[in-house]
Amino acid sequence: MTATPHSDVLSKDQVDELCAFACKLADAAAEITLSYFRQPIGVDDKDKGDGFDPVTKADQGAEKAIRALIEEHYPDHGIFGEEFGIKEAAGPFEWVLDPVDGTRAFISGLPTWGTLIALRHNGEPVIGVIDQPYIKERYLGWPGGATLNDMPIKTRACPSLDKATLSSTDPGLFKGVERDRFDTLLREIRLVRYGLDCYAYAVMAAGHMDMVVESGLKPYDMMALIPVIRGAGGSATNWEGEAPGDCGRLLALGDPTLLEQVMDILQS
Amino acid sequence: MTATPHSDVLSKDQVDELCAFACKLADAAAEITLSYFRQPIGVDDKDKGDGFDPVTKADQGAEKAIRALIEEHYPDHGIFGEEFGIKEAAGPFEWVLDPVDGTRAFISGLPTWGTLIALRHNGEPVIGVIDQPYIKERYLGWPGGATLNDMPIKTRACPSLDKATLSSTDPGLFKGVERDRFDTLLREIRLVRYGLDCYAYAVMAAGHMDMVVESGLKPYDMMALIPVIRGAGGSATNWEGEAPGDCGRLLALGDPTLLEQVMDILQS
Repeated sequence: MTATPHSDVLSKDQVDELCAFACKLADAAAEITLSYFRQPIGVDDKDKGDGFDPVTKADQGAEKAIRALIEEHYPDHGIFGEEFGIKEAAGPFEWVLDPVDGTRAFISGLPTWGTLIALRHNGEPVIGVIDQPYIKERYLGWPGGATLNDMPIKTRACPSLDKATLSSTDPGLFKGVERDRFDTLLREIRLVRYGLDCYAYAVMAAGHMDMVVESGLKPYDMMALIPVIRGAGGSATNWEGEAPGDCGRLLALGDPTLLEQVMDILQS
Repeated sequence: MTATPHSDVLSKDQVDELCAFACKLADAAAEITLSYFRQPIGVDDKDKGDGFDPVTKADQGAEKAIRALIEEHYPDHGIFGEEFGIKEAAGPFEWVLDPVDGTRAFISGLPTWGTLIALRHNGEPVIGVIDQPYIKERYLGWPGGATLNDMPIKTRACPSLDKATLSSTDPGLFKGVERDRFDTLLREIRLVRYGLDCYAYAVMAAGHMDMVVESGLKPYDMMALIPVIRGAGGSATNWEGEAPGDCGRLLALGDPTLLEQVMDILQS
Protein backbone atom coordinates (compact mmCIF):
# COMPACT_ATOMS: atom_id res chain seq x y z
CA MET A 1 0.00 0.00 0.00
CA THR A 2 2.93 2.30 0.58
CA ALA A 3 4.60 1.20 -2.62
CA THR A 4 5.40 3.85 -5.18
CA PRO A 5 3.45 2.62 -8.18
CA HIS A 6 4.70 3.38 -11.65
CA SER A 7 8.20 4.23 -10.51
CA ASP A 8 9.25 1.51 -12.93
CA VAL A 9 6.90 2.60 -15.70
CA LEU A 10 7.99 6.23 -16.02
CA SER A 11 11.64 7.00 -16.71
CA LYS A 12 13.55 9.39 -14.49
CA ASP A 13 13.68 11.90 -17.33
CA GLN A 14 9.95 11.65 -17.80
CA VAL A 15 9.33 12.18 -14.08
CA ASP A 16 11.70 15.17 -14.02
CA GLU A 17 10.05 16.76 -17.05
CA LEU A 18 6.54 16.25 -15.73
CA CYS A 19 7.44 17.49 -12.23
CA ALA A 20 8.91 20.66 -13.75
CA PHE A 21 5.77 21.13 -15.83
CA ALA A 22 3.54 20.59 -12.78
CA CYS A 23 5.49 23.38 -11.02
CA LYS A 24 5.00 25.61 -14.07
CA LEU A 25 1.25 25.01 -13.74
CA ALA A 26 1.42 25.94 -10.05
CA ASP A 27 3.25 29.17 -10.94
CA ALA A 28 0.52 30.10 -13.42
CA ALA A 29 -2.20 29.36 -10.88
CA ALA A 30 -0.43 31.36 -8.16
CA GLU A 31 -0.37 34.47 -10.29
CA ILE A 32 -4.18 34.37 -10.50
CA THR A 33 -5.01 33.18 -6.98
CA LEU A 34 -2.73 35.71 -5.26
CA SER A 35 -4.28 38.56 -7.23
CA TYR A 36 -7.61 37.72 -5.55
CA PHE A 37 -6.47 36.57 -2.08
CA ARG A 38 -7.40 39.08 0.64
CA GLN A 39 -9.04 41.31 -1.97
CA PRO A 40 -12.76 42.09 -1.97
CA ILE A 41 -14.11 39.41 -4.31
CA GLY A 42 -17.45 38.26 -5.64
CA VAL A 43 -18.38 34.98 -4.03
CA ASP A 44 -20.98 33.02 -5.91
CA ASP A 45 -22.96 30.46 -4.05
CA LYS A 46 -23.11 27.41 -6.25
CA ASP A 47 -24.97 25.47 -3.57
CA LYS A 48 -28.27 27.29 -3.26
CA GLY A 49 -29.48 24.89 -0.58
CA ASP A 50 -28.61 24.98 3.08
CA GLY A 51 -24.91 24.41 2.42
CA PHE A 52 -22.43 27.11 1.57
CA ASP A 53 -20.06 26.32 -1.28
CA PRO A 54 -18.24 29.45 -2.37
CA VAL A 55 -16.64 29.65 -5.77
CA THR A 56 -14.33 32.50 -6.40
CA LYS A 57 -12.99 34.09 -9.49
CA ALA A 58 -9.61 32.87 -8.27
CA ASP A 59 -10.76 29.27 -8.60
CA GLN A 60 -12.08 29.71 -12.10
CA GLY A 61 -9.31 31.96 -13.39
CA ALA A 62 -6.54 29.69 -12.11
CA GLU A 63 -8.10 26.57 -13.60
CA LYS A 64 -8.43 28.30 -16.98
CA ALA A 65 -4.74 29.26 -16.88
CA ILE A 66 -3.68 25.71 -15.98
CA ARG A 67 -5.87 24.10 -18.65
CA ALA A 68 -4.51 26.41 -21.36
CA LEU A 69 -0.93 25.42 -20.54
CA ILE A 70 -1.73 21.69 -20.57
CA GLU A 71 -3.59 21.94 -23.87
CA GLU A 72 -0.65 23.85 -25.37
CA HIS A 73 2.14 21.53 -24.14
CA TYR A 74 0.44 18.14 -23.84
CA PRO A 75 -2.63 18.12 -26.09
CA ASP A 76 -3.02 14.35 -25.61
CA HIS A 77 -3.28 14.57 -21.83
CA GLY A 78 -6.70 14.42 -20.25
CA ILE A 79 -7.89 17.07 -17.77
CA PHE A 80 -10.28 16.71 -14.82
CA GLY A 81 -10.79 20.02 -13.04
CA GLU A 82 -13.12 20.98 -10.22
CA GLU A 83 -14.50 24.01 -12.05
CA PHE A 84 -14.61 23.07 -15.72
CA GLY A 85 -14.99 19.30 -15.75
CA ILE A 86 -13.42 16.61 -17.90
CA LYS A 87 -11.42 16.65 -21.14
CA GLU A 88 -10.89 13.06 -22.24
CA ALA A 89 -7.29 11.86 -22.59
CA ALA A 90 -5.88 10.40 -25.83
CA GLY A 91 -3.32 8.38 -23.85
CA PRO A 92 -2.42 7.23 -20.33
CA PHE A 93 -1.98 10.69 -18.74
CA GLU A 94 -4.63 12.81 -17.03
CA TRP A 95 -4.22 15.97 -14.93
CA VAL A 96 -6.54 16.32 -11.94
CA LEU A 97 -6.94 19.90 -10.70
CA ASP A 98 -8.33 21.83 -7.77
CA PRO A 99 -7.04 25.38 -8.19
CA VAL A 100 -8.24 26.51 -4.75
CA ASP A 101 -8.72 23.67 -2.29
CA GLY A 102 -10.07 25.28 0.87
CA THR A 103 -12.18 28.08 -0.62
CA ARG A 104 -13.66 28.76 2.84
CA ALA A 105 -10.18 29.52 4.18
CA PHE A 106 -9.42 31.53 1.04
CA ILE A 107 -12.43 33.82 1.38
CA SER A 108 -11.72 34.21 5.11
CA GLY A 109 -8.22 35.54 4.43
CA LEU A 110 -6.56 32.44 5.92
CA PRO A 111 -3.42 31.13 4.21
CA THR A 112 -4.25 27.44 4.68
CA TRP A 113 -5.80 26.86 1.23
CA GLY A 114 -3.78 25.30 -1.55
CA THR A 115 -3.62 24.69 -5.27
CA LEU A 116 -3.78 20.95 -6.02
CA ILE A 117 -2.27 19.58 -9.21
CA ALA A 118 -2.04 15.83 -9.84
CA LEU A 119 -0.92 13.77 -12.77
CA ARG A 120 -2.44 10.32 -13.14
CA HIS A 121 -0.93 7.58 -15.30
CA ASN A 122 -3.48 4.92 -16.22
CA GLY A 123 -5.60 6.14 -13.33
CA GLU A 124 -2.81 6.03 -10.72
CA PRO A 125 -1.65 9.37 -9.22
CA VAL A 126 2.11 9.59 -9.90
CA ILE A 127 2.93 13.28 -9.45
CA GLY A 128 1.34 15.70 -7.01
CA VAL A 129 1.74 19.37 -6.12
CA ILE A 130 0.27 21.05 -3.03
CA ASP A 131 1.06 24.73 -3.50
CA GLN A 132 0.48 27.52 -0.93
CA PRO A 133 1.73 30.60 -2.75
CA TYR A 134 0.95 33.19 -0.06
CA ILE A 135 3.19 31.47 2.52
CA LYS A 136 5.40 30.42 -0.42
CA GLU A 137 5.37 26.70 0.27
CA ARG A 138 5.37 24.23 -2.58
CA TYR A 139 5.10 20.53 -1.71
CA LEU A 140 5.95 18.20 -4.60
CA GLY A 141 5.74 14.41 -4.65
CA TRP A 142 6.61 11.73 -7.22
CA PRO A 143 7.36 7.97 -7.17
CA GLY A 144 10.16 7.76 -4.64
CA GLY A 145 10.48 11.25 -3.21
CA ALA A 146 8.91 14.49 -2.00
CA THR A 147 10.15 18.01 -1.39
CA LEU A 148 9.09 21.28 0.21
CA ASN A 149 10.55 24.14 -1.83
CA ASP A 150 13.08 21.72 -3.34
CA MET A 151 14.27 20.42 0.06
CA PRO A 152 13.54 16.72 0.74
CA ILE A 153 10.81 16.03 3.31
CA LYS A 154 10.05 12.92 5.30
CA THR A 155 7.14 11.96 7.51
CA ARG A 156 7.97 11.36 11.16
CA ALA A 157 7.80 8.16 13.17
CA CYS A 158 4.87 7.89 15.57
CA PRO A 159 5.52 5.13 18.08
CA SER A 160 1.91 4.79 19.28
CA LEU A 161 -1.56 6.13 18.65
CA ASP A 162 -1.69 8.03 21.96
CA LYS A 163 1.21 10.19 20.73
CA ALA A 164 -0.48 11.05 17.43
CA THR A 165 -1.60 14.45 16.15
CA LEU A 166 -4.63 14.03 13.88
CA SER A 167 -6.28 16.44 11.48
CA SER A 168 -9.60 16.46 9.67
CA THR A 169 -11.26 19.35 7.88
CA ASP A 170 -14.67 19.19 9.55
CA PRO A 171 -15.91 16.49 11.95
CA GLY A 172 -19.45 17.53 10.95
CA LEU A 173 -18.88 15.90 7.56
CA PHE A 174 -18.86 12.43 9.15
CA LYS A 175 -22.36 10.98 9.42
CA GLY A 176 -23.78 8.04 11.35
CA VAL A 177 -21.41 5.13 11.79
CA GLU A 178 -18.51 7.10 10.24
CA ARG A 179 -18.93 9.69 12.96
CA ASP A 180 -18.95 7.04 15.69
CA ARG A 181 -15.74 5.52 14.36
CA PHE A 182 -14.07 8.91 14.06
CA ASP A 183 -15.10 9.76 17.63
CA THR A 184 -13.57 6.49 18.82
CA LEU A 185 -10.34 7.38 17.05
CA LEU A 186 -10.40 10.83 18.67
CA ARG A 187 -10.39 9.22 22.12
CA GLU A 188 -7.21 7.31 21.26
CA ILE A 189 -5.04 10.14 19.93
CA ARG A 190 -3.32 13.09 21.58
CA LEU A 191 -4.25 16.20 19.65
CA VAL A 192 -6.65 17.14 16.85
CA ARG A 193 -6.61 20.13 14.47
CA TYR A 194 -9.55 21.04 12.21
CA GLY A 195 -10.24 23.25 9.21
CA LEU A 196 -7.10 22.75 7.18
CA ASP A 197 -8.13 21.05 3.93
CA CYS A 198 -5.06 20.05 1.84
CA TYR A 199 -2.65 21.92 4.10
CA ALA A 200 -2.99 19.24 6.79
CA TYR A 201 -1.65 16.57 4.43
CA ALA A 202 1.24 18.81 3.40
CA VAL A 203 2.26 19.48 6.99
CA MET A 204 1.93 15.76 7.78
CA ALA A 205 4.16 14.90 4.82
CA ALA A 206 6.76 17.33 6.17
CA GLY A 207 6.79 15.47 9.50
CA HIS A 208 4.78 17.79 11.82
CA MET A 209 1.51 15.85 12.20
CA ASP A 210 0.81 12.12 12.13
CA MET A 211 -2.54 11.41 10.56
CA VAL A 212 -5.33 12.90 8.43
CA VAL A 213 -8.71 11.16 8.23
CA GLU A 214 -11.44 12.40 5.91
CA SER A 215 -14.46 11.26 3.96
CA GLY A 216 -16.59 12.74 1.22
CA LEU A 217 -13.57 13.80 -0.84
CA LYS A 218 -13.78 14.25 -4.59
CA PRO A 219 -10.96 12.99 -6.85
CA TYR A 220 -9.65 16.53 -7.34
CA ASP A 221 -9.45 16.93 -3.51
CA MET A 222 -7.38 13.75 -3.15
CA MET A 223 -5.21 12.88 -6.14
CA ALA A 224 -2.46 15.50 -5.66
CA LEU A 225 -2.06 14.57 -1.99
CA ILE A 226 -1.23 10.91 -2.60
CA PRO A 227 2.18 11.25 -4.36
CA VAL A 228 3.29 13.84 -1.78
CA ILE A 229 2.35 11.63 1.18
CA ARG A 230 3.84 8.45 -0.34
CA GLY A 231 6.92 10.23 -1.63
CA ALA A 232 7.60 11.48 1.91
CA GLY A 233 7.33 7.95 3.34
CA GLY A 234 3.72 7.92 4.50
CA SER A 235 0.77 5.83 3.42
CA ALA A 236 -2.40 6.99 1.66
CA THR A 237 -5.22 4.47 1.59
CA ASN A 238 -8.97 4.29 2.02
CA TRP A 239 -10.36 3.41 5.47
CA GLU A 240 -9.96 -0.28 4.61
CA GLY A 241 -6.23 0.09 3.94
CA GLU A 242 -6.64 -0.32 0.18
CA ALA A 243 -5.64 2.04 -2.62
CA PRO A 244 -7.95 5.05 -2.31
CA GLY A 245 -10.41 4.76 -5.16
CA ASP A 246 -13.53 6.81 -5.69
CA CYS A 247 -15.12 6.17 -2.29
CA GLY A 248 -13.84 9.54 -1.05
CA ARG A 249 -12.54 8.17 2.27
CA LEU A 250 -8.87 8.94 2.78
CA LEU A 251 -6.65 7.73 5.60
CA ALA A 252 -3.21 9.33 5.48
CA LEU A 253 -0.54 8.20 7.90
CA GLY A 254 2.92 9.63 8.40
CA ASP A 255 4.01 6.36 10.02
CA PRO A 256 2.54 3.40 8.07
CA THR A 257 3.17 1.03 10.99
CA LEU A 258 0.03 2.52 12.63
CA LEU A 259 -2.16 1.41 9.72
CA GLU A 260 -3.62 -1.79 11.15
CA GLN A 261 -4.38 -0.22 14.51
CA VAL A 262 -6.21 2.73 12.90
CA MET A 263 -8.04 0.49 10.44
CA ASP A 264 -9.30 -1.64 13.32
CA ILE A 265 -10.93 1.47 14.79
CA LEU A 266 -12.29 2.86 11.53
CA GLN A 267 -13.86 -0.50 10.68
CA SER A 268 -15.04 -1.50 14.14
CA MET B 1 -17.25 51.08 23.94
CA THR B 2 -15.30 51.47 20.73
CA ALA B 3 -13.55 54.59 21.98
CA THR B 4 -9.77 54.57 22.04
CA PRO B 5 -9.06 55.15 25.70
CA HIS B 6 -5.91 56.94 26.77
CA SER B 7 -5.29 58.49 23.38
CA ASP B 8 -5.41 61.77 25.26
CA VAL B 9 -3.27 60.55 28.15
CA LEU B 10 -0.23 59.37 26.18
CA SER B 11 1.55 61.81 23.90
CA LYS B 12 2.17 60.92 20.26
CA ASP B 13 5.90 60.69 20.99
CA GLN B 14 5.23 58.32 23.87
CA VAL B 15 3.02 56.13 21.70
CA ASP B 16 5.62 56.10 18.91
CA GLU B 17 8.41 55.17 21.31
CA LEU B 18 6.43 52.43 23.00
CA CYS B 19 5.17 50.99 19.68
CA ALA B 20 8.77 50.81 18.43
CA PHE B 21 9.81 49.09 21.65
CA ALA B 22 6.92 46.61 21.39
CA CYS B 23 8.17 45.72 17.89
CA LYS B 24 11.68 45.26 19.26
CA LEU B 25 10.23 42.79 21.78
CA ALA B 26 8.48 40.94 18.96
CA ASP B 27 11.77 40.72 17.04
CA ALA B 28 13.50 39.20 20.07
CA ALA B 29 10.69 36.68 20.54
CA ALA B 30 10.70 35.74 16.85
CA GLU B 31 14.35 34.81 16.93
CA ILE B 32 13.60 32.23 19.64
CA THR B 33 10.24 30.94 18.42
CA LEU B 34 11.39 30.43 14.83
CA SER B 35 14.41 28.46 15.99
CA TYR B 36 11.98 25.90 17.46
CA PHE B 37 9.10 26.04 14.96
CA ARG B 38 8.87 22.84 12.87
CA GLN B 39 11.86 21.39 14.72
CA PRO B 40 11.66 18.27 16.86
CA ILE B 41 11.03 19.75 20.31
CA GLY B 42 10.39 18.53 23.80
CA VAL B 43 6.79 19.12 24.68
CA ASP B 44 6.05 19.12 28.38
CA ASP B 45 2.54 18.46 29.53
CA LYS B 46 1.79 20.99 32.22
CA ASP B 47 -1.80 19.77 32.50
CA LYS B 48 -1.43 16.23 33.81
CA GLY B 49 -5.19 15.73 33.89
CA ASP B 50 -7.40 14.84 30.93
CA GLY B 51 -6.55 18.04 29.06
CA PHE B 52 -3.50 18.57 26.92
CA ASP B 53 -1.65 21.84 27.45
CA PRO B 54 1.69 21.78 25.74
CA VAL B 55 4.45 24.13 26.74
CA THR B 56 7.39 24.40 24.48
CA LYS B 57 10.87 25.64 24.95
CA ALA B 58 9.92 28.32 22.41
CA ASP B 59 7.32 29.71 24.81
CA GLN B 60 9.67 29.88 27.73
CA GLY B 61 12.74 31.08 25.84
CA ALA B 62 10.84 33.86 24.08
CA GLU B 63 9.26 35.13 27.31
CA LYS B 64 12.67 35.22 28.99
CA ALA B 65 14.09 37.26 26.09
CA ILE B 66 11.19 39.74 26.21
CA ARG B 67 11.34 40.13 29.99
CA ALA B 68 15.09 40.82 29.89
CA LEU B 69 14.58 43.65 27.39
CA ILE B 70 11.77 45.23 29.42
CA GLU B 71 13.76 45.05 32.64
CA GLU B 72 16.74 46.63 30.89
CA HIS B 73 14.87 49.51 29.18
CA TYR B 74 11.88 50.13 31.46
CA PRO B 75 12.72 48.81 34.94
CA ASP B 76 9.60 50.53 36.38
CA HIS B 77 7.21 48.72 34.06
CA GLY B 78 5.29 45.75 35.36
CA ILE B 79 5.28 42.40 33.54
CA PHE B 80 2.56 39.76 33.40
CA GLY B 81 3.63 36.78 31.29
CA GLU B 82 1.97 33.43 30.67
CA GLU B 83 5.04 31.41 31.55
CA PHE B 84 6.79 33.31 34.35
CA GLY B 85 4.04 35.24 36.09
CA ILE B 86 3.87 38.75 37.48
CA LYS B 87 6.48 41.40 38.19
CA GLU B 88 4.74 44.30 39.96
CA ALA B 89 4.90 47.71 38.29
CA ALA B 90 6.32 50.83 39.96
CA GLY B 91 4.09 53.04 37.82
CA PRO B 92 1.12 52.98 35.43
CA PHE B 93 2.64 50.69 32.75
CA GLU B 94 2.45 46.90 32.58
CA TRP B 95 3.40 44.56 29.74
CA VAL B 96 1.16 41.52 29.23
CA LEU B 97 2.80 38.69 27.29
CA ASP B 98 1.94 35.43 25.61
CA PRO B 99 5.05 34.47 23.63
CA VAL B 100 3.31 31.62 21.78
CA ASP B 101 -0.48 31.95 21.65
CA GLY B 102 -1.71 28.82 19.92
CA THR B 103 0.84 26.29 21.15
CA ARG B 104 -1.30 23.48 19.69
CA ALA B 105 -0.92 25.01 16.22
CA PHE B 106 2.78 25.60 16.92
CA ILE B 107 3.55 21.99 17.80
CA SER B 108 1.48 20.81 14.81
CA GLY B 109 3.64 22.81 12.39
CA LEU B 110 0.78 25.22 11.56
CA PRO B 111 1.68 28.91 11.07
CA THR B 112 -1.46 30.26 12.78
CA TRP B 113 0.10 30.81 16.22
CA GLY B 114 1.27 34.26 17.26
CA THR B 115 3.34 36.18 19.76
CA LEU B 116 1.12 38.52 21.82
CA ILE B 117 2.58 41.63 23.39
CA ALA B 118 0.37 44.22 25.09
CA LEU B 119 1.09 47.35 27.04
CA ARG B 120 -1.47 48.40 29.66
CA HIS B 121 -1.65 51.91 31.11
CA ASN B 122 -3.48 51.97 34.42
CA GLY B 123 -5.00 48.62 33.51
CA GLU B 124 -6.22 49.66 30.05
CA PRO B 125 -4.59 48.00 27.00
CA VAL B 126 -3.17 50.82 24.85
CA ILE B 127 -0.66 49.11 22.56
CA GLY B 128 -0.88 45.61 21.10
CA VAL B 129 1.23 43.43 18.82
CA ILE B 130 0.08 40.19 17.18
CA ASP B 131 3.19 38.81 15.50
CA GLN B 132 3.33 35.79 13.15
CA PRO B 133 7.02 35.62 12.28
CA TYR B 134 6.91 32.51 10.08
CA ILE B 135 4.44 34.09 7.63
CA LYS B 136 6.12 37.42 8.41
CA GLU B 137 2.99 39.28 9.46
CA ARG B 138 3.13 41.84 12.27
CA TYR B 139 -0.15 43.44 13.35
CA LEU B 140 0.28 46.53 15.54
CA GLY B 141 -2.45 48.60 17.20
CA TRP B 142 -2.45 51.77 19.31
CA PRO B 143 -5.01 54.44 20.27
CA GLY B 144 -6.24 55.60 16.89
CA GLY B 145 -4.65 53.25 14.38
CA ALA B 146 -3.48 49.79 13.36
CA THR B 147 -1.09 48.39 10.78
CA LEU B 148 -0.04 45.11 9.19
CA ASN B 149 3.67 45.30 8.38
CA ASP B 150 3.48 49.10 8.60
CA MET B 151 0.55 49.38 6.17
CA PRO B 152 -2.70 50.73 7.68
CA ILE B 153 -5.47 48.16 8.13
CA LYS B 154 -9.20 48.63 8.59
CA THR B 155 -11.98 46.26 9.50
CA ARG B 156 -14.67 45.77 6.85
CA ALA B 157 -18.32 46.71 6.96
CA CYS B 158 -20.74 43.84 7.48
CA PRO B 159 -24.26 44.91 6.52
CA SER B 160 -26.06 42.05 8.30
CA LEU B 161 -25.43 39.04 10.48
CA ASP B 162 -26.30 36.56 7.74
CA LYS B 163 -23.32 37.84 5.72
CA ALA B 164 -20.87 37.45 8.61
CA THR B 165 -17.83 35.18 8.83
CA LEU B 166 -17.26 34.14 12.45
CA SER B 167 -14.30 32.51 14.11
CA SER B 168 -13.79 30.82 17.46
CA THR B 169 -10.88 28.66 18.56
CA ASP B 170 -12.84 25.66 19.83
CA PRO B 171 -16.64 25.38 20.20
CA GLY B 172 -15.99 22.64 22.77
CA LEU B 173 -14.76 25.32 25.18
CA PHE B 174 -18.30 26.72 25.53
CA LYS B 175 -20.26 24.94 28.24
CA GLY B 176 -23.95 24.88 29.13
CA VAL B 177 -25.82 28.10 28.41
CA GLU B 178 -22.76 29.64 26.71
CA ARG B 179 -22.80 26.76 24.22
CA ASP B 180 -26.53 27.23 23.56
CA ARG B 181 -26.04 30.93 22.86
CA PHE B 182 -23.05 30.27 20.61
CA ASP B 183 -25.05 27.64 18.70
CA THR B 184 -27.87 30.18 18.21
CA LEU B 185 -25.35 32.66 16.84
CA LEU B 186 -23.98 29.99 14.49
CA ARG B 187 -27.42 29.58 12.92
CA GLU B 188 -27.54 33.30 12.09
CA ILE B 189 -24.17 33.73 10.41
CA ARG B 190 -22.79 32.61 7.05
CA LEU B 191 -19.47 30.89 7.66
CA VAL B 192 -17.45 29.74 10.67
CA ARG B 193 -13.73 28.94 11.00
CA TYR B 194 -12.20 27.21 14.04
CA GLY B 195 -8.77 26.60 15.51
CA LEU B 196 -7.09 29.95 14.91
CA ASP B 197 -6.35 31.47 18.34
CA CYS B 198 -5.03 35.07 18.01
CA TYR B 199 -4.68 34.82 14.25
CA ALA B 200 -8.47 35.07 13.81
CA TYR B 201 -8.51 38.51 15.48
CA ALA B 202 -5.60 39.67 13.32
CA VAL B 203 -7.31 38.61 10.10
CA MET B 204 -10.55 40.23 11.29
CA ALA B 205 -8.71 43.48 12.01
CA ALA B 206 -7.33 43.39 8.47
CA GLY B 207 -10.87 43.18 7.07
CA HIS B 208 -11.19 39.52 6.02
CA MET B 209 -13.51 38.15 8.72
CA ASP B 210 -16.30 39.83 10.69
CA MET B 211 -16.47 38.45 14.20
CA VAL B 212 -14.60 36.43 16.82
CA VAL B 213 -16.43 35.10 19.88
CA GLU B 214 -14.59 33.33 22.69
CA SER B 215 -14.75 32.59 26.38
CA GLY B 216 -12.32 31.25 28.95
CA LEU B 217 -9.54 33.61 27.84
CA LYS B 218 -6.76 34.66 30.17
CA PRO B 219 -5.56 38.30 30.25
CA TYR B 220 -2.43 37.39 28.29
CA ASP B 221 -4.64 35.81 25.57
CA MET B 222 -6.71 38.99 25.21
CA MET B 223 -4.88 42.22 26.00
CA ALA B 224 -2.73 42.48 22.85
CA LEU B 225 -5.76 41.87 20.63
CA ILE B 226 -7.79 44.82 21.88
CA PRO B 227 -5.65 47.76 20.62
CA VAL B 228 -5.27 46.05 17.22
CA ILE B 229 -9.02 45.49 16.84
CA ARG B 230 -9.97 48.98 18.05
CA GLY B 231 -7.17 50.69 16.14
CA ALA B 232 -8.49 49.07 12.93
CA GLY B 233 -12.02 50.35 13.61
CA GLY B 234 -13.60 47.33 15.26
CA SER B 235 -15.00 46.84 18.74
CA ALA B 236 -13.67 44.59 21.49
CA THR B 237 -16.05 44.04 24.42
CA ASN B 238 -17.24 41.29 26.70
CA TRP B 239 -20.48 39.48 25.77
CA GLU B 240 -22.47 42.23 27.50
CA GLY B 241 -20.95 44.95 25.31
CA GLU B 242 -18.83 46.35 28.13
CA ALA B 243 -15.07 46.81 28.33
CA PRO B 244 -13.59 43.30 28.47
CA GLY B 245 -12.43 42.80 32.05
CA ASP B 246 -11.29 39.57 33.62
CA CYS B 247 -14.37 37.48 32.78
CA GLY B 248 -12.50 35.97 29.83
CA ARG B 249 -15.41 36.40 27.39
CA LEU B 250 -14.42 38.39 24.32
CA LEU B 251 -16.69 39.59 21.53
CA ALA B 252 -14.72 41.17 18.70
CA LEU B 253 -16.58 42.79 15.82
CA GLY B 254 -15.15 44.26 12.65
CA ASP B 255 -18.32 46.29 12.18
CA PRO B 256 -19.44 47.70 15.56
CA THR B 257 -22.97 48.36 14.23
CA LEU B 258 -23.65 44.62 14.67
CA LEU B 259 -22.98 44.83 18.42
CA GLU B 260 -26.54 45.08 19.74
CA GLN B 261 -27.80 42.32 17.49
CA VAL B 262 -25.03 39.94 18.56
CA MET B 263 -25.38 40.88 22.24
CA ASP B 264 -29.09 40.07 22.06
CA ILE B 265 -28.19 36.54 20.97
CA LEU B 266 -25.32 36.04 23.41
CA GLN B 267 -27.51 37.16 26.34
CA SER B 268 -30.78 35.54 25.27
